[in-house]
Amino acid sequence: MIGNEFMELKKNERIDDLQYKGLKIIQNPSGFCFGIDAVLLANFAKGMKRAETVVDLCTGTGIIAVLLCGKTNAKNIIGVEIQDEYAEMANRSVMLNNIQDRVKILNKDLNKLSEEIQAATVDVVTVNPPYKKAGSGIINDADSMTVARHEVFCTLEDVIKESSRLLKSGGTFYMVHRPERLVDIFCLMRNYKIEPKRVMFVHPTANKAPNIVLIEGSKNGGRFLKFENPLYVYDEDGNYTDELYAFEA
Amino acid sequence: MIGNEFMELKKNERIDDLQYKGLKIIQNPSGFCFGIDAVLLANFAKGMKRAETVVDLCTGTGIIAVLLCGKTNAKNIIGVEIQDEYAEMANRSVMLNNIQDRVKILNKDLNKLSEEIQAATVDVVTVNPPYKKAGSGIINDADSMTVARHEVFCTLEDVIKESSRLLKSGGTFYMVHRPERLVDIFCLMRNYKIEPKRVMFVHPTANKAPNIVLIEGSKNGGRFLKFENPLYVYDEDGNYTDELYAFEA
Repeated sequence: MIGNEFMELKKNERIDDLQYKGLKIIQNPSGFCFGIDAVLLANFAKGMKRAETVVDLCTGTGIIAVLLCGKTNAKNIIGVEIQDEYAEMANRSVMLNNIQDRVKILNKDLNKLSEEIQAATVDVVTVNPPYKKAGSGIINDADSMTVARHEVFCTLEDVIKESSRLLKSGGTFYMVHRPERLVDIFCLMRNYKIEPKRVMFVHPTANKAPNIVLIEGSKNGGRFLKFENPLYVYDEDGNYTDELYAFEA
Repeated sequence: MIGNEFMELKKNERIDDLQYKGLKIIQNPSGFCFGIDAVLLANFAKGMKRAETVVDLCTGTGIIAVLLCGKTNAKNIIGVEIQDEYAEMANRSVMLNNIQDRVKILNKDLNKLSEEIQAATVDVVTVNPPYKKAGSGIINDADSMTVARHEVFCTLEDVIKESSRLLKSGGTFYMVHRPERLVDIFCLMRNYKIEPKRVMFVHPTANKAPNIVLIEGSKNGGRFLKFENPLYVYDEDGNYTDELYAFEA
């Protein structure tokens, strides 16, 4: 067993305590660190049944794969990450948490995943993809931060297309994204036969427009969309709301 | 000028004061009466510029056409209604309000509107269509209530397809509908080249899921979707919120 005390950190890296069942994650504060989005997605997805096989695309630091280990009974979680340094770091987080019997990190381009995982063999796909279109915003070069935030290596269509290929019929898709991409998301999901079934909007406060959307879809599912009650992150006094604590419990 | 005192009402009809600039509407309480949805749509759409030609599809009692006369400078508003008795009643409401120089009611199936209105000649389309799919819920026969609520004579696709035909490039589409149809709405709008540009969710209260959605689209518009701040109808004490009053002012 590889314990915390033997874990070697690289330059600038640190170990963050996830404040949940003793789970930890290795991050590099000068690179892309996980945000509230990943935590929200893990909680939105935790209602999944005792899924045999879960694939977390764009896994980055592995945050969602690690959280799902704590929040579900999933036995076979595969985190897919294209960037070598993140895949390697995620792999060390898996060892740090001693969950290598449940989580595998695959350092692979999701567009080439058919070389590794057969079609229609996955129960659940989770994904916190890059939000911004390639070419939007200020991009100096394709550094790791840019790749995590912009569609440099994979577009929204790549993500949804590959998720559809992976999922068994009736399998479930969970994604977190930005509301302004909702038309793209819904049209692509329907086009690739992942019917949107459940939506939850997350607002900074009750009187502000939503800035995060959580979406559940079903491969080959029927047409009915349910809206969850909205989630507000902060109350009027700037404190986290009780609903947020309850959602993340 | 035809005044209120000379307006003949039919059996069961009544005149309701819209509490706005003296506008009134004739309704039959045993048939379909307008609801908050129509009022919300008229307010959502009032930001329209001094549009020359506005078409209100599925106009019913003519409520939206009448309200738009009070809330905008639109000079040529055409309300389209397939059901004879509603078209006739709407026409009497137009006369009652003495706005026949600005509003015409057309008793016509919107699927045959090309016989009356040329393509790409309309600046704004507004529509509060039947929400439910034909065959869903309990339908005894195609009475006027059923037609107003279910897609008996026109489907959502018919509405969006005809709106797209009517609108000039850059023209604006405003619709009120139910959130559970949002995937259908977005996919059909994009398919018929009316890009969704602005969305506003209306919730019964701040902690409940939205039950009404207001959508603005642009014919041949670019891809960017803006979310408005949510609107809550009731506050914690069961009173209308200040935001609702402000929205409807």
